[in-house]
Order: sequence, then C-alpha cells, then structure tokens
Amino acid sequence: MAFSERITRLKSSLIREILAAAQRPEVMSFAGGLPAEEMLPVLDWSQMPTGMGQYGMSEGEPALREAIAAEARLLGVPCEASQVLIVSGSQQTLDLASKLFIDPGTKVLLEAPTYLAALQAFQLFGADCVAVPQEADGPQLQALEAQLERQRPAFAYLIPTFQNPSAVRYSEAKRDAVAALLDRYQVTLIEDEPYRELVFDAGSATPIVSRLRKASWIYTGTVSKTLLPGLRVGYLIATPDLFPHLLRLKQSADLHTNRVGQWQALQWLGTEQYREHLAELRDFYRLRRDAMQAALVEHFSELAEWQVPQGGLFFWLKLKQPQDTRLLLDAALAQNVAFMPGEPFFIDPDREPGYLRLNFSHVAPERLDEGLRRLAGVVRQGLAADAA
Amino acid sequence: MAFSERITRLKSSLIREILAAAQRPEVMSFAGGLPAEEMLPVLDWSQMPTGMGQYGMSEGEPALREAIAAEARLLGVPCEASQVLIVSGSQQTLDLASKLFIDPGTKVLLEAPTYLAALQAFQLFGADCVAVPQEADGPQLQALEAQLERQRPAFAYLIPTFQNPSAVRYSEAKRDAVAALLDRYQVTLIEDEPYRELVFDAGSATPIVSRLRKASWIYTGTVSKTLLPGLRVGYLIATPDLFPHLLRLKQSADLHTNRVGQWQALQWLGTEQYREHLAELRDFYRLRRDAMQAALVEHFSELAEWQVPQGGLFFWLKLKQPQDTRLLLDAALAQNVAFMPGEPFFIDPDREPGYLRLNFSHVAPERLDEGLRRLAGVVRQGLAADAA
Repeated sequence: MAFSERITRLKSSLIREILAAAQRPEVMSFAGGLPAEEMLPVLDWSQMPTGMGQYGMSEGEPALREAIAAEARLLGVPCEASQVLIVSGSQQTLDLASKLFIDPGTKVLLEAPTYLAALQAFQLFGADCVAVPQEADGPQLQALEAQLERQRPAFAYLIPTFQNPSAVRYSEAKRDAVAALLDRYQVTLIEDEPYRELVFDAGSATPIVSRLRKASWIYTGTVSKTLLPGLRVGYLIATPDLFPHLLRLKQSADLHTNRVGQWQALQWLGTEQYREHLAELRDFYRLRRDAMQAALVEHFSELAEWQVPQGGLFFWLKLKQPQDTRLLLDAALAQNVAFMPGEPFFIDPDREPGYLRLNFSHVAPERLDEGLRRLAGVVRQGLAADAA
Repeated sequence: MAFSERITRLKSSLIREILAAAQRPEVMSFAGGLPAEEMLPVLDWSQMPTGMGQYGMSEGEPALREAIAAEARLLGVPCEASQVLIVSGSQQTLDLASKLFIDPGTKVLLEAPTYLAALQAFQLFGADCVAVPQEADGPQLQALEAQLERQRPAFAYLIPTFQNPSAVRYSEAKRDAVAALLDRYQVTLIEDEPYRELVFDAGSATPIVSRLRKASWIYTGTVSKTLLPGLRVGYLIATPDLFPHLLRLKQSADLHTNRVGQWQALQWLGTEQYREHLAELRDFYRLRRDAMQAALVEHFSELAEWQVPQGGLFFWLKLKQPQDTRLLLDAALAQNVAFMPGEPFFIDPDREPGYLRLNFSHVAPERLDEGLRRLAGVVRQGLAADAA
C-alpha cells in the first residue's frame, strides 16, 4: 500500500490512548481537558427552526458570526463579522492553518512547551517547528527575537492566556513586546484562546492580535470549554488577507460546521444566562483548583515545583529530579490513575523529561487525595528504579 | 505573505458562488443538491442525555457505528463496527482520503465527469487526476483497464449509484467487472454512495466494495441526503489496513464529529420511522423527477439529450450543439435562474463544453415550467451569440 509521505509523520496520539484508558469509570483521570460533567448545561432545543437541518453556508450562521465579532470587539479585537469563520472546534483551525501555510520544511514558531495536538498537526503537514522557552510571564523575548530573525517562520502559534500545558498567562508587558516583535518581522500570529473565560482572578489578558499594527493574524476560540465540547463549534477570526483562503479550505474540509450546534451556541453567546453560567463555572473550577492545590501540597511538595494556575484547566508540575514521565504511565494506569506526561508537549520529547500535566476540572474532590497519593507513589517508585 | 504551495491549487468554488447567488428567494435554483425544505423531518431532542455535550471519541458514538455496520452488512458490505468512522459529512472523507494517499503528483483515477468537490479536494493536495469516460451503464472497461495498468493510481474514486453529476447507475455486470479489475491491479477503491437510498425503481445496486477480494477499500455514506444535511454526520467504512490511519487523521482534523448530530442520526437509522420517511422521500422526489422530465421534454427536446435518472437528485443534459455553459450563468442569474455548468465536473473543463447539471429536488413544481423556459431561452441566446 502506497500512502502519502505525510503518513510517515502521523503519530499515534498519546492523548487518545490515555483518554481511552481513562474511560473506565474506576480510573481517576487527571489526563484530559474535559469539562466537569455536572457543569454541562441542559439544552433547550424546542425553539430551533426545522430549516437548521438544511445545508448552510461555509462561513457559518450569519447571526452567530455577528455575535462572535461583537464579543471579540469587546475584548479589543478589531474585527467585523465578515472576518469570522465558524469551524468544527478549534482543532479544525489548526488543520486549516496548516493547509494554508505549511509545506514540508516550512518553519513554524511555538512556545516550549506547547499544545500537543497543535504540534502534531503542524508536524503532520511537514512543519519544521522551532521553539521559544516559556517563562512565568510569557516567552523569553531575546530567544523570540532571535528565532524570528533567524528562522523567518511562516507563523507563530501562541497560547497567551492560561497556556496549555504550562498554565502561563503572558503579562501585559510581554503581550506588548511580542506584538511589537511580530510586527517588526512581519510574522503572522495564530493566537489560540480556548481558556480565556475560565479565569479565577481579575488579571488583564487583552489579546495580542489587538496590539498588532502590521502583522497578519488568526484569533481562535471555541465554546468547548465554556459550554459544550460535544457541539464541536469553534471559530476563527482572521485578517482580510487570510480569510478568503481559510474559507475555501473550510469548504473543502467539511462544507460547513453543523448548524444545530451553531444554533445552540447562538442561544447562549452574549446572553445573561451565559454570563451566569460562566460565573458558576468559574466558581466551580476555582474550588476544584483550590482542592487540587491543597492535595498537591500534601503529596507533591517534596517531588515537584509548580505555579498555582490563575485560569484554565491544568497544573504543570516540574519534577525536582527529572525522569521520563512517559515510563510512569503504565504503573499509574495499573493503579487506576491517568495523567498526561509532559514530554510530548515539546518538539524534542527525549530532551525534556520531568514534567506532568494534571487536569483539575474532572476528578471529584473526594477522590482527589487518593488519586494524587497514588500518583506520588508512582513517581517515587520511578525515582527508586532510576536510582537502582 | 508566503502561503503553502497547495494554495496555488486552491480554486474558487463555483458551487459556493452559485449557491450564494441562489439564496435570493426569487431565484429558481437548479444548481445545488439541496433536499426539499418541506421534506426535512421535525426533530425530537427531548430524550438526548446531557452527557452528549461532553467530548466524545474520534471513532464516533459506539451505538451509531454498530447501527451503520449492521445496515452496511444488509447491503452486502462485509464489515464490523470497528471499521466504521463517523465523519463530519462525506466531504470530510474526501479530505481524510486525500491526506492518506496524495502527495503532489500522485495519480488518482476518476470517472469523467465526476463530483466537482472531490476533484477539487484531490487537486488541492496535488493529485494528478486521470479519468475514465462514463457510459450509460458505468465506466468504459477498456479505458479503465488501460488507466489502471498504465497509471497505477493510488486509488480509484467512483460513485456507482446515481452518479453525481451524470445520474448513471452502474449495471451488475460493470460492478463485477470493475471489482475484478481493481483486484487484479490491487488498486484501492473509494466508493462514494450519498444517493443510494434515493431510488425510484427496483434496480439492483450492491456496492462494488462487497465484490472485492484483494483490493483495499473505503465505502462512504451520509445522512445528508435522506435525513438532514445540517447535522453534518456522515461515515466511512474502511478495510483494516486503512482504518487506523484514517482515525488518526480524523482526530487531527477535528477531534470528533459533533455528538448531538450523531445522537439524532441514531434515533432514525434502522427504525420503522426512518423507513417510512425514506418511502415518503422517494415518492416525493419521484413526483418532482417526473415533473422535471415533463418540463424538460417541453423546453429542451430540441436543445439537449438526457437519460431519465432512476435515482439521486440530478438530470445531466448534453447540449446537441456544445457551448461553454459557464458563459451562460450570468444571463441565467439575471433572469433569476441558477444551474450548474457541466465543465467543472471534468479534469480539463475547457475540453468538455456543453453539459448542464439540473437538480430536480428543490424547485417547486409550479415554478418549474417557468424556470426551464427561461433557461432554454438563455441556451438559445448563447447559440445565437456563438453563431454571430
């Protein structure tokens, strides 16, 4: 069988395999980025017009595009509804952007660590990914400038607000500095913002795209983290030089995003009901984050270092004594605990041992302590095995 | 701006532009393949579990995969649920198959004419498409064998049942012969069957994939033509050598297909309610086909030749005096009539003038006569202009 060359770059997805293992009800899963089941809103479909069953436009539902543009303008993103493309979840934006920009060998600039599924999507299309180290307040600026100047990447893919996996939120100063550098080198920005609304404090987080003056950009968001991932409704907003190409690529990918999900999303966006739901969600996740922090202090203080996340869904632990956390996975699953090893979030996994990404939104608080106690035991066993 | 090389092959979609023009309510559109609005079923969502809002599996909902496998086995397709992948409409199968097989220059074998959006998807990835002429009962077998032997295509993409655009249904003998040739040259078959259930007579149409003994295959179907296109729920069934790659490509494309649409499709597939709906749909479309045939006889007998379609959604007209039908589009739209020029359904549009694809499911019968009268007038004016 003769497959395309890109299939040699198609990796087995660790995420999918871990999530499959984590589906057993007895497993305490810190692995995924799943919303808590109990916070999924009940949907009312009674007012949906029958016509929503018909084919729709590749751009998406006009009213939904208007609502998203209005919300984005409130954030400071300068845009019109004509720049909004409804996509089948944010993952599709990565696919469309890959098609738009990436030939084998095309340079793409990422944070280190970065979102695993983005890295895999870009690499599938043959990207030569280069990275900038992440600091507590955003990317190392000197490294960023050096990479922009030397590599001239086709685009930079950044997650400035509660980054996945590191939970870093860029400071105001770094947001300004990153925008200025992208403008200077005229490098397109893809700004991925799935976690923006899951914020537990009052810190600022105006998008970087709103600070750009010259560079082209794609801003991407989703209702998956705040409403319902099962709808598969996300969006991108793009500068007018990029939009027509993305629209045609969208049409070639799946004609258009499902309209029943778009209609449902429109019932929520911008409403008082949605604001109340978001407030409840933040309160709920803040409590879960606090419970996780307490349990981590108890079980991981000797083993790891971490920052308390101010938003998003993850803790990012750095082991004090690095070991390849991928090798801990079987032992953890044998004890009915799932977690996400940190290595696959880096371009060169073998050179970055010793991180764990732990989701705090999914495991019920009453099982948290037991789950983290077991996981700490697995880490200690790994250290002992390394020492032996 | 440096885009990828594939963007040079990204065509403006005539379909999207014509459909956009056809959205004006005063336009009588023979252009699209839209189901009739009055036959869209009313949906009952009251029993949907809240959990359908959560992330799901990339493979699709297990119960839906089982139901689709069971239906396929009734058609003679040998398969298990583990070979079924739920996709976001059949268009996505074309995207996934392109990613699996096509590098720039990869040979792909098609019918001439073939489905325009498939041709565009394959060409976007750089396929070097080669074609086999279509006869009234399926492809010319000598030409097929010559292409298989000479070109060794990565796959053959065929639409054997009520082909889009030609409405051809392969005979039993041609189905057998095509399967034997694909087996002999071990060329993978992608068999696209969106129209199978829209059948107006009792003719046989056992899938070609059920006749293969050696060649790999992908069989693709959808609920878009029989239930609701707006759900964006389709499926593929693949041989086990292809399935794992398609699954990973699906995950990279959009994680999984929306679950609310999958849940809704499952409420219908295999039920008595669905069988009744299909029977009503066939009766309704048969009447529309007959009305279209009567109006065509009146207005186009001098201008064109055609076969009466036994299924699907289209008439395929061959003008007795060929002219480039793309040049008739503006004049038709100026008279509030939309149709689909035949040229883009061929690999080399400029060499295949003189076909029109006319949809018979969408225009109400009381407007049909006026619409076709105007369209015939536009064709006559085109002839006069050519002669002048």
